[in-house]
Amino acid sequence: MIRRIDDYRGIVDDETIHTIFMKARKFSNKHIVHINSTYQGGGVAEILTSLVSLMNDVGIFTGWRILYGSPDFFSITKKFHNALQGDQINLTNIKREIYEEYNEYFARFTHLNHDLVIVHDPQPLPLIKYYRKRQPWVWRCHVDLSSPNPELWEYLKSFILRYDMVIVSNENYKQNNLPVSQHVHYPTIDPLSAKNKPLNKTIIKKYLKKFGIPTDKPLITQISRFDKWKDPEGVIKVFELVKQEVDCRLVLCGNMATDDPEGQKIYERVVQKTKNNKDIILIMEENNILVNALQSTASVVIQKSLREGFGLTVSEALWKRRPVVASNVGGIPLQVIDGKTGFLVEPNDIPGFAKKVITLLKEPKLAQELGSNGRVHVKKNFLITRSLLDYLEVMNEVLY
Amino acid sequence: MIRRIDDYRGIVDDETIHTIFMKARKFSNKHIVHINSTYQGGGVAEILTSLVSLMNDVGIFTGWRILYGSPDFFSITKKFHNALQGDQINLTNIKREIYEEYNEYFARFTHLNHDLVIVHDPQPLPLIKYYRKRQPWVWRCHVDLSSPNPELWEYLKSFILRYDMVIVSNENYKQNNLPVSQHVHYPTIDPLSAKNKPLNKTIIKKYLKKFGIPTDKPLITQISRFDKWKDPEGVIKVFELVKQEVDCRLVLCGNMATDDPEGQKIYERVVQKTKNNKDIILIMEENNILVNALQSTASVVIQKSLREGFGLTVSEALWKRRPVVASNVGGIPLQVIDGKTGFLVEPNDIPGFAKKVITLLKEPKLAQELGSNGRVHVKKNFLITRSLLDYLEVMNEVLY
Repeated sequence: MIRRIDDYRGIVDDETIHTIFMKARKFSNKHIVHINSTYQGGGVAEILTSLVSLMNDVGIFTGWRILYGSPDFFSITKKFHNALQGDQINLTNIKREIYEEYNEYFARFTHLNHDLVIVHDPQPLPLIKYYRKRQPWVWRCHVDLSSPNPELWEYLKSFILRYDMVIVSNENYKQNNLPVSQHVHYPTIDPLSAKNKPLNKTIIKKYLKKFGIPTDKPLITQISRFDKWKDPEGVIKVFELVKQEVDCRLVLCGNMATDDPEGQKIYERVVQKTKNNKDIILIMEENNILVNALQSTASVVIQKSLREGFGLTVSEALWKRRPVVASNVGGIPLQVIDGKTGFLVEPNDIPGFAKKVITLLKEPKLAQELGSNGRVHVKKNFLITRSLLDYLEVMNEVLY
Repeated sequence: MIRRIDDYRGIVDDETIHTIFMKARKFSNKHIVHINSTYQGGGVAEILTSLVSLMNDVGIFTGWRILYGSPDFFSITKKFHNALQGDQINLTNIKREIYEEYNEYFARFTHLNHDLVIVHDPQPLPLIKYYRKRQPWVWRCHVDLSSPNPELWEYLKSFILRYDMVIVSNENYKQNNLPVSQHVHYPTIDPLSAKNKPLNKTIIKKYLKKFGIPTDKPLITQISRFDKWKDPEGVIKVFELVKQEVDCRLVLCGNMATDDPEGQKIYERVVQKTKNNKDIILIMEENNILVNALQSTASVVIQKSLREGFGLTVSEALWKRRPVVASNVGGIPLQVIDGKTGFLVEPNDIPGFAKKVITLLKEPKLAQELGSNGRVHVKKNFLITRSLLDYLEVMNEVLY
């Protein structure tokens, strides 16, 4: 859990490590703070767990605070999250009041005399209103902003306008008519986390056995929540076509979207469709080592998303040198360069997906080549050290 | 959620309010911080939600930080909690390592330059080891320490010895052979919280209806987790005896102890025993307004604990002028003065419980008198303003 830059020697180049130390030096007397809404669950908490530790290791006093919330508050911010991704919302006064009230409450006991405040996602966005602002504030929005609900966006803008900088995860998430400096940071993975660190064969075997996954046939896997945007039903159709040509198994592994009634239904349909097929294995556990073991073992990794914020599971698989067949949506084409680090397919093209999976199962040499290229591509672009450099660049911009 | 001392005028005496302001004045330039492990769930989070807000309101810069943890970490600290209350524990090296590692990790990003650090409960206890100590540290232990597991206590002592003061919830939780100053703070309730604020009759009716609780017969209620120490099965036996004399209903309302296999079994037995009895209503929801409505409506409130840390639900009921029949264990006899603010019964005396409940159902005037006395007693001893004064006293002691 504690990360030191030294631990990344041999994973990234020495030059990167030296550059980080050099760029960090000028902030050695600075005190900065990250604020988000949870320590556990989700990509933001995962990245902060590593990043905050690394920032302290390079000599920047870096705090991390968790917003105060209640089930009420989080059910409202969940609706905001979905509406930022384009859903409808009934933006009542009571929703606005509860949203702002919790932020006001948190501000009362959170005394910020830092040199820089970095706020993650919509939950703590209004905080800035409850301080006498005496430092730059940056809003890092990890949400898909390609078509935010206009009424909600207009409301949130009243907070966003107070910020010095907005950071989004994709070029096309930048907003028109926003007079705030907008930057793009692609998300990254931590090669030393439980999900990505190298596992020895004994541990991989142990975990696959524990979760009832035989390895007598090639494995195809998709690691994703059971919701409509990840299209698990589409993956099953792809698998059925592949099975006509090559004998193999499918493992679908992910959370059930318990907070989402539509997700529940999708999950139930998937259970129904697969219960008589011994070659399809569903796993509902959230276990990082298991995910790691699956991604390390799979013959082909699928990411058949219909829509995708960024799709870091693709980088996780590429980092493990796996050949990937994925939808040409969201941040996926940044990770999968078609024919070089994997195959891109249009999201609804089920026969197209099947064809590429079959190709990879039949041509292990090609599969290996794509996987190796994928690892190099991720090393260059999507490792946590790159995020650290991004934040050093932000500090350079807003602190001087 | 935001609390101001002014809001308590009319609830406590003006003299108390003036005393608070006078005692707080000398700490107006101090910066203190509370550290515990959660914002939500449980009595400690509840009291801090009000207390931290009030301390800021009287002019003391008071922060509140939440320890970083994972399911692993919390399953270990849960075992520690139970062992502090006397359970067996297998105190392996891996448990110690994970316990300490998370504290070390948290310390890396939590820069404490405060004048006083108040650590709540065992989870963040080791933190002190990871700082250059430059201020007093106080450990506020809310756990029942009447017979802690000796091996665990010896281990935890290596952290406790670094503290300036230990605060426990009961005189007999003080430990022998501990060369640290030990104080007793009784816990308190917040009369303005959702669980305790006055509700009008329309809201009470609405909530009782929503949860399917008819009011055509007198209600008896126990608000408690379904675990062995709260003895829900004993309450049912008491109710069956009462029913032979007076027609009434029983409502058992509380969490299921999902993290405790023994609790699961108790819960299942309770469900089994009550499913054919329309006069026993089980409610598994955690809803503060419902608890308030039940406590405000009940003809008799039972607290039939076999063991009890403090048992604040008793003060919650007394504050609402309810007659209480409760076990003579833990902190209950501090709240229930037998024959004056309620009735005390030995915990295993089921006929004794039934007799007192019947008395109260048959003598509404007596019930009313005990309830009124109870309110006065709670007002004097168990309201949050008293906790605030306790902490001002602590600051006075350790800061000068």
